[in-house]
Amino acid sequence: MTSAVQRASTRRLAAATGGGAITRTVLPGGLRVVTEVMPGVRSASVGVWVPTGSRDESAPLAGSSHFLEHLLFKATSSRSALDIARAMDAVGGEFNAFTEKEHTCYYATVLDRDVDLAIDIVGDVVLNATIPAADLDVERGVVLEEIAMRDDDPGDLVHDEFSTALFGDTPLGRPILGTEDSIRALTRRQVHGYYRRRYTPDAMVVSVAGNVEHAAVVKQVRALFGDRLDGARGPVAPRPTGTPRTFRPDRPLRVVPDDCEQANIVLGGHGVSRHDPRRWALGVLSSALGGGMSSRLFQRIREQRGLAYSVYSFTGGYADAGQFGVYAGCQPGKADEVLSLMIAELDAAASGDLAPDEIERGKGQMRGGLALGLEDAGSRMTRIGRSELVYGDILGLDDVLAHIDAVTAQDVAEIAAEVLQRPRCLTVVGPFGEHEFDGAVS
Amino acid sequence: MTSAVQRASTRRLAAATGGGAITRTVLPGGLRVVTEVMPGVRSASVGVWVPTGSRDESAPLAGSSHFLEHLLFKATSSRSALDIARAMDAVGGEFNAFTEKEHTCYYATVLDRDVDLAIDIVGDVVLNATIPAADLDVERGVVLEEIAMRDDDPGDLVHDEFSTALFGDTPLGRPILGTEDSIRALTRRQVHGYYRRRYTPDAMVVSVAGNVEHAAVVKQVRALFGDRLDGARGPVAPRPTGTPRTFRPDRPLRVVPDDCEQANIVLGGHGVSRHDPRRWALGVLSSALGGGMSSRLFQRIREQRGLAYSVYSFTGGYADAGQFGVYAGCQPGKADEVLSLMIAELDAAASGDLAPDEIERGKGQMRGGLALGLEDAGSRMTRIGRSELVYGDILGLDDVLAHIDAVTAQDVAEIAAEVLQRPRCLTVVGPFGEHEFDGAVS
Repeated sequence: MTSAVQRASTRRLAAATGGGAITRTVLPGGLRVVTEVMPGVRSASVGVWVPTGSRDESAPLAGSSHFLEHLLFKATSSRSALDIARAMDAVGGEFNAFTEKEHTCYYATVLDRDVDLAIDIVGDVVLNATIPAADLDVERGVVLEEIAMRDDDPGDLVHDEFSTALFGDTPLGRPILGTEDSIRALTRRQVHGYYRRRYTPDAMVVSVAGNVEHAAVVKQVRALFGDRLDGARGPVAPRPTGTPRTFRPDRPLRVVPDDCEQANIVLGGHGVSRHDPRRWALGVLSSALGGGMSSRLFQRIREQRGLAYSVYSFTGGYADAGQFGVYAGCQPGKADEVLSLMIAELDAAASGDLAPDEIERGKGQMRGGLALGLEDAGSRMTRIGRSELVYGDILGLDDVLAHIDAVTAQDVAEIAAEVLQRPRCLTVVGPFGEHEFDGAVS
Repeated sequence: MTSAVQRASTRRLAAATGGGAITRTVLPGGLRVVTEVMPGVRSASVGVWVPTGSRDESAPLAGSSHFLEHLLFKATSSRSALDIARAMDAVGGEFNAFTEKEHTCYYATVLDRDVDLAIDIVGDVVLNATIPAADLDVERGVVLEEIAMRDDDPGDLVHDEFSTALFGDTPLGRPILGTEDSIRALTRRQVHGYYRRRYTPDAMVVSVAGNVEHAAVVKQVRALFGDRLDGARGPVAPRPTGTPRTFRPDRPLRVVPDDCEQANIVLGGHGVSRHDPRRWALGVLSSALGGGMSSRLFQRIREQRGLAYSVYSFTGGYADAGQFGVYAGCQPGKADEVLSLMIAELDAAASGDLAPDEIERGKGQMRGGLALGLEDAGSRMTRIGRSELVYGDILGLDDVLAHIDAVTAQDVAEIAAEVLQRPRCLTVVGPFGEHEFDGAVS
């Protein structure tokens, strides 16, 4: 135990804006513990991050990362689901988890005095889940309900369909939830094997933010992980960034007939990976094009013509790929008009039409949104945990702001010219026939 | 001007948990300015609250409070919609508004250094909107899209339908958004007249929370409201609490046929008004019954049987009425089973079946959720603004916690016996015929 203590390495990473500090300790075997101290708050948020998501699934395992996330709450070697629920409800904590394409996060947000309990329970669930066979069928029902709920939300469904149209029937293209068929077919043996293979401490990051003390957090995590901390290994490196790929969508047009009131339209294509240095410029482009009330799309589609309530742009970055798109929900009879406006604005931006003041506002919006979005412990825990997991490093908030400040109009024009001229992919969910938009995108 | 300054009265209301203070100044004419100082944050949130909502609408004006909320962003005597949007986007602020049944709030959340801009713009929009006729038709389209989006979200729609089934075709029962017909029929004259009648400073509350200074906020608000501060009036009193009413739902059963995957079920009835001292006990009851993972409904319906992903209870309080209900989304073929479980749990709680430890956890959950939900400037602004508007007073956070602590098992048993034995109202949105649940509730 003593020698293990000596082998742990701790490093101050950044002074956090607002007075605190971000610190990382690598424990023997590779488990990383990162904390951000927020002296002004009375809360703490604890996350355990695992680099396992839907893109790690073979086709027969589709949806198992997310299914597993559900199952981990059902029982550990020392606690029942009810024990877990009672302990967190008693202190009014929020205990939850989310699964993405490249990672899963289990987290609890509690009053600062309850941080020991939060670390204990989140750690227990991640390390010691037993996944009883009987629970598998019960929870299968819950996940099938979650899929049905997603299907009933056309504004949500269109994004899953867009990803699939863009990346095809690949791990990155498949929906995180899996499909009804894949979830029905998953066995306890498959899910449990997946858990044993993927949930190893050398791959994990524990992130804690709030009114906490780094050394105390590290001490508790060490005790909790105990003999799982095998000194022979080191931290698992971030997911490989892969080789460049073609930027052709798998299906340039995808119409999902749905008996809903609105046409839900996503138009976009391949973006940049989260390691691409041009991601900051793409973020500014997205802000200027469809980020705020003064953005091109909001002004043209909502403000001047009243064609949509919800209209925005979005970006997504993975280890080796990315996506960029614009969304609008409108009356089916106005879908052609809205789509024409979307195309016109993407074309205009691609040809360098964004003015310097639009780009400056895009930057201002990113800066403000970033700072205002990091006031509570949960958002800080999420930022440092995800960053450590996917980059193996954490930028201070000031460094992030400096990256945004450094984006020039030229940078935005260049990324726009490249990304917005790639082959496009149109996905529509609404009361249409499958061929109703044939020819709308080339 | 000097005499007006002398007539302003300022009072410290409570020391805020976390170090700050809550202070109220009543300006000449009755405008109230309330602030909560949060020294630890770098942001500020500014809200202007108007005691006007959908329940203030006659039938021909249905939806006009919310429509007006949209129109106020379109133009003021000195700013275009684009000017407003550009100014807020440049600093990365969030500028938005929401309309409820009894009030409307316009707010902006910004970095603390931009608080002057936020007060200036939010105040301008509320005081000086011009509502040009041309904008009315454009924004009518946006509101119709918002209605269509609500219709496409069955989990949202079922709550609007429940309210209507409970309170009938009354101002409190009608949807906040209005209907497609009412929105199409509203004229500029109607909406503008409504604005002139209802948006008077004596009825308003300006609430600001964050890293701000009370005196500086008051000074700026005075300058901004200028000669609108008529010394002859005083603050408008909170909405009258009305007389006791019968607790019979207008329509005990309402099925909305909808071609969606899930059955969306709400079962409930009349609750208590927000002035009722038993509202704290009803809150604890709601927590214990369907608030957290250890709650009765979550355990019975999701955890043990896997019948739903989303299942919870809710309360709502108005000046003279209230509602209480439970929600679940499930496979249509399981709707009868889920409904039976809901009824069984409501019956059990009504007969005093909740154990002391369940009630204690309900209290713990309310305490934790309250504290954890008040970490950012926006949530504090909302709490103090709404409280001042509807109660004419603001409880400190410690006082709220004391009210929760004071709830006894006996209090919960009594409110459960009363509220849960009132005639019930069942509302279902899903793939059913209108008579499919006939006889399910008496």
